[in-house]
Amino acid sequence: MVEIIDTTFRDAHQSLIATRMSTKDMLPIAEKMDKIGFYSMEVWGGATFDVSLRFLREDPWERLKLLREHIRKTKLQMLLRGQNLVGYRHYPDDVVEKFVELAYKNGIDIFRVFDALNDVRNMKTAIKKAKEIGAEVQGAICYTTGPIFTIDYYLQKVDELIELDVDYITIKDMAGLADPQTAYELVKEIKERYGIKVNFHTHATSGLAVATYLKAVEAGVDYIDTSIYPLAGGTAQPAVQTMYYALPKGKRPKLNIKLIHEISKYLTNLLEKKYDHLLTKKAIHGDPNVLIHQIPGGMYSNLIKQLSELKALDKLEEVLEEVPRVREDLGYPPLVTPTSQIVGVQAVLNVLFGRYKQVTKETKDYVRGLYGRPPGKIKEEIKKLILGDEEPINVRPADLLEPMLEKAKKELKEKGYLEKEEDVVTYCLFPQVALEFFELRRQGRLRPVEEKPKGKPIKIYINGKEFEV
Amino acid sequence: MVEIIDTTFRDAHQSLIATRMSTKDMLPIAEKMDKIGFYSMEVWGGATFDVSLRFLREDPWERLKLLREHIRKTKLQMLLRGQNLVGYRHYPDDVVEKFVELAYKNGIDIFRVFDALNDVRNMKTAIKKAKEIGAEVQGAICYTTGPIFTIDYYLQKVDELIELDVDYITIKDMAGLADPQTAYELVKEIKERYGIKVNFHTHATSGLAVATYLKAVEAGVDYIDTSIYPLAGGTAQPAVQTMYYALPKGKRPKLNIKLIHEISKYLTNLLEKKYDHLLTKKAIHGDPNVLIHQIPGGMYSNLIKQLSELKALDKLEEVLEEVPRVREDLGYPPLVTPTSQIVGVQAVLNVLFGRYKQVTKETKDYVRGLYGRPPGKIKEEIKKLILGDEEPINVRPADLLEPMLEKAKKELKEKGYLEKEEDVVTYCLFPQVALEFFELRRQGRLRPVEEKPKGKPIKIYINGKEFEV
Ligand SMILES: [Co+2]
Ligand SMILES: [Co+2]
Repeated sequence: MVEIIDTTFRDAHQSLIATRMSTKDMLPIAEKMDKIGFYSMEVWGGATFDVSLRFLREDPWERLKLLREHIRKTKLQMLLRGQNLVGYRHYPDDVVEKFVELAYKNGIDIFRVFDALNDVRNMKTAIKKAKEIGAEVQGAICYTTGPIFTIDYYLQKVDELIELDVDYITIKDMAGLADPQTAYELVKEIKERYGIKVNFHTHATSGLAVATYLKAVEAGVDYIDTSIYPLAGGTAQPAVQTMYYALPKGKRPKLNIKLIHEISKYLTNLLEKKYDHLLTKKAIHGDPNVLIHQIPGGMYSNLIKQLSELKALDKLEEVLEEVPRVREDLGYPPLVTPTSQIVGVQAVLNVLFGRYKQVTKETKDYVRGLYGRPPGKIKEEIKKLILGDEEPINVRPADLLEPMLEKAKKELKEKGYLEKEEDVVTYCLFPQVALEFFELRRQGRLRPVEEKPKGKPIKIYINGKEFEV
Repeated sequence: MVEIIDTTFRDAHQSLIATRMSTKDMLPIAEKMDKIGFYSMEVWGGATFDVSLRFLREDPWERLKLLREHIRKTKLQMLLRGQNLVGYRHYPDDVVEKFVELAYKNGIDIFRVFDALNDVRNMKTAIKKAKEIGAEVQGAICYTTGPIFTIDYYLQKVDELIELDVDYITIKDMAGLADPQTAYELVKEIKERYGIKVNFHTHATSGLAVATYLKAVEAGVDYIDTSIYPLAGGTAQPAVQTMYYALPKGKRPKLNIKLIHEISKYLTNLLEKKYDHLLTKKAIHGDPNVLIHQIPGGMYSNLIKQLSELKALDKLEEVLEEVPRVREDLGYPPLVTPTSQIVGVQAVLNVLFGRYKQVTKETKDYVRGLYGRPPGKIKEEIKKLILGDEEPINVRPADLLEPMLEKAKKELKEKGYLEKEEDVVTYCLFPQVALEFFELRRQGRLRPVEEKPKGKPIKIYINGKEFEV
C-alpha cells in the first residue's frame, strides 16, 4: 500500500506563496496533521530556512523544535541540498556535519538529500553523517529530460546512492516533467532491480502529477508526495484530496479524510485572509507548455525579466532556442537552482553578443567543475573556449574548502550574539542575514519584514473600465 | 488510437471566463485550430447561445456560420440540453425540431444531447430529428455518484440511447467526480458489451481529469474532451498539452503540437488583455473537496450566497448535510442545472423552517414529474407531503406543451423583426432577451453589455497594507 508524504509545511507553501507561511500559522493545525496518518511530513529545509530568517524573522531552529513538540507521531523530514545544505553554495564538511547533527537533534527523522547535478560526491558527507547519527536518508535523484537521461542513467544513480547506504530512493521531479509511462518504467525497474523503497516527488505544474503518481503506484512505488488543498496544485504538489480518490478503492492509504477536510477549510481561510496577494494565478494555473519547450516556469519568467531589463525582449524566441543548446554544451545540467540561472544568463549573453563571447563567472566556475560533475560531458571546444589552457578541478568541490565552524563560533562570541550552537551554523550559512537577525533578536525587535507586493500593477475594473493601481 | 474533441470555444471559456469569449476573439485562430488534427470541436450550445445574445449582443447563429466558414475540415459539434435545447426549460417539439434543423444547416455536424435527469424521453425528439437530417449524435449520460449509480445504471442508459440509434455514447462528468478506476470499468463494460464508440467528458475541477482520461484510454475509449491551455484546467477541461504527454508514446493522437503552442500564446495574451477580471483564482484552482462532500463548486457558492442573504450563514454545515438527504428524498437527481438549484434551495428551506414545511414551486413541479423522471424513486412519504392527493404526470413533460413556432413567427413579423428563420427559434428560446436584441439590431446599436465585475471587492496591497477597492 502506497503511503503519503505531506509537503504542506515546506514545498507546497514554498511553491505557491513564496515560502511565507509562518510558524504561527502552522501550529494551530499541527496536532491535527499529526493524526491524519501521513507516513511523514516534510516541514523544513529547502527555502524555508532562508525565508524564515530573512523575511519572517523567525529562528528556523525554533520552528523545527515547536513543530516537533506538536507532531509527536508522524515522522518529520527536511529537504537538504547536499553540500549546499539550505543555502546556495557549497559549505565545508564541518558545517555540513554540524547542520545534520543539529537538525536531527531538533526533530528531523528523515533527510532527503539531493544535488542539482546529481553528483553524488556532493551528497556524500550529509548522507554519511545522517546515517551515522541514526537518521533515515532519502537519496534523491533530480529528474530531468534530454538524450542522456535514459532509464540506465537513473539506475546508475540508484547504484551510487545505495552504495552510500540510503534507506529510500526519491525521484525528485521538480519541474513536473515526468510522464506517467516513464514514471511507471522507472519505478518498476528500480523496484525489480534493487527492491529498495522508492518515493516519487513531483509538482502539478504541467498537469501530469496525478496521472504520474497513479502509474508510479501501479509500478509499486512506496511513497508519494502530496499536500493539502488549497496549498496544492499548480506549481505545488497535487492535492492529497485528489490523489486519495485517484487511487483504486483497495489501494487507498489509511488517511483521516475528515481531518484533511477540516485543515483544508483552515488553509482556505488563512490564504484568503493573509496570503492572497502572494498566491498568483500563474502559480495556481501552472503551465503545461513546459512539456513542449522544456523550460521550467521559474526560469522562463526570469528570462523575460532579464531581457526586459536589457530592452531586448524581441530576442526571447532566439534565447528560448539557445537554452537547450547551452544545456547541451554544458553536459545537460538539470534546469534547477543554480544551473537554471547559469544556463539562462549564458543563453542571453550568447544571443546578444555571440556565442560565448561573454562568459559569466558562474559559467566559468561551472566549467571548472566548482559545482560538481555535470551529468553529461561538457563539449571539448566549449571547455577550451571558456577555460583556455586551465584544467578543471578533478576533486569534489568541497575538498577545496577550509573548515568554518571554529572561526564562526569565535566571531559570534566576540560580537556577543552566541546563544546556542545552532546560531553558529546559521551564521555559516547566511553570514550577513544572520548578523542582522541576531542584532534584532538582541534588541527584542524581531518582526516580519514588510514587503511590497511583487509583480505587475494590479488592474481593477470599475463599470467595465480598466484602471491600474 | 484515442482522438481529441476540443472544447476551447464552448465548455472551456464557459467554465473559466463566464462564456464571454467573443466571435471576434475566435476567428483569428479558427483556421489554425482547424489544422491541429482534432476529431471535432465543440463550438456552440450550452450557455454560449444565451450569453452571446444577452451580453455579447452577437447573433449566435452568425457565430456558427462564421466559424463554419473558417473551420472547413474539422467537425463541429454543439451541446444540446435535450428538450431544453440551449435554454432552461422544456420547449415543445416543433421548436426542438426546427432548432436542430437550423443548427445543422448552419454548420453543426455532431449533436451532443443530454438530459439533467438522464430521462431519455427528454432527449428523444432532438436525437430523432438530428439522425433524420443526417447529423451525428452523441448520446450523453450525466455521470454522478450515489447508491443507485452503479455500472448497471449506466449500461441501462446506454441501452436506451442505442435504441434511439445514437452514433456515440458520451459519459458527461460535469462535476469532475469520475475517478480513474470507475472510468476504466465503465468504458470497458460499454465497449465490451456494445462495441459502440465512447467519448469521455470531464472537468479538471477535482484534479482527477488527466488520470481519469488515461485510464479511460487504457480501457479503449475512443474520444476524450480537452481544451487548449490557458483556457484549460480548473473548472474547464484538462489541457490538451498535458493530455498529449500523459498518454504513452505509442498512443498519442496525431496533433500539430507547434500550432497548439502558437494558439496557447494567443490565448494567454487574450486572457491577460481582455478577460483577466473574469478568470478567478477559484475557477483556475478548482476544488478537490468536491470529492469529499460531493457538492459541486457552483452549487456550493450558491448556497453560501443564499444563506448570506438570509443572514443564516451559521447554518451552512447543517445545509451541507441536508443536501444529500434531499437528494435521496427526490430520487437522486444529478446535481446539475436545474436540479442543483431545486435541491439546494429546498435544503436551505428544510433547515430554516423544518423539513418540507415550505416547498418551492420548482420542487413541487419536480415531484409532479414536470422535469422528467428522476433516476431513482421519489420517497412515497415525501411525494405525499408535497403533492397531497395529486398524482404526478406519467407522460413525457413536453407532451403537455403546445406548439410555439407559428405563433412566434407571426408575432415577430408583426413587430417587424423577422429577418430570417433562425430569428423565430431565438425568439421562442428567450422571448424577452430576443426582443431587446432584435430592437437593437434594427437600430444598428448592437454592442456588448457593459458589466460590472462580479464577486468580492478587490484587495490591493500598498506597502504591505491591505486596501479594498
Ligand atoms: Co519539490
Ligand atoms: Co462540461
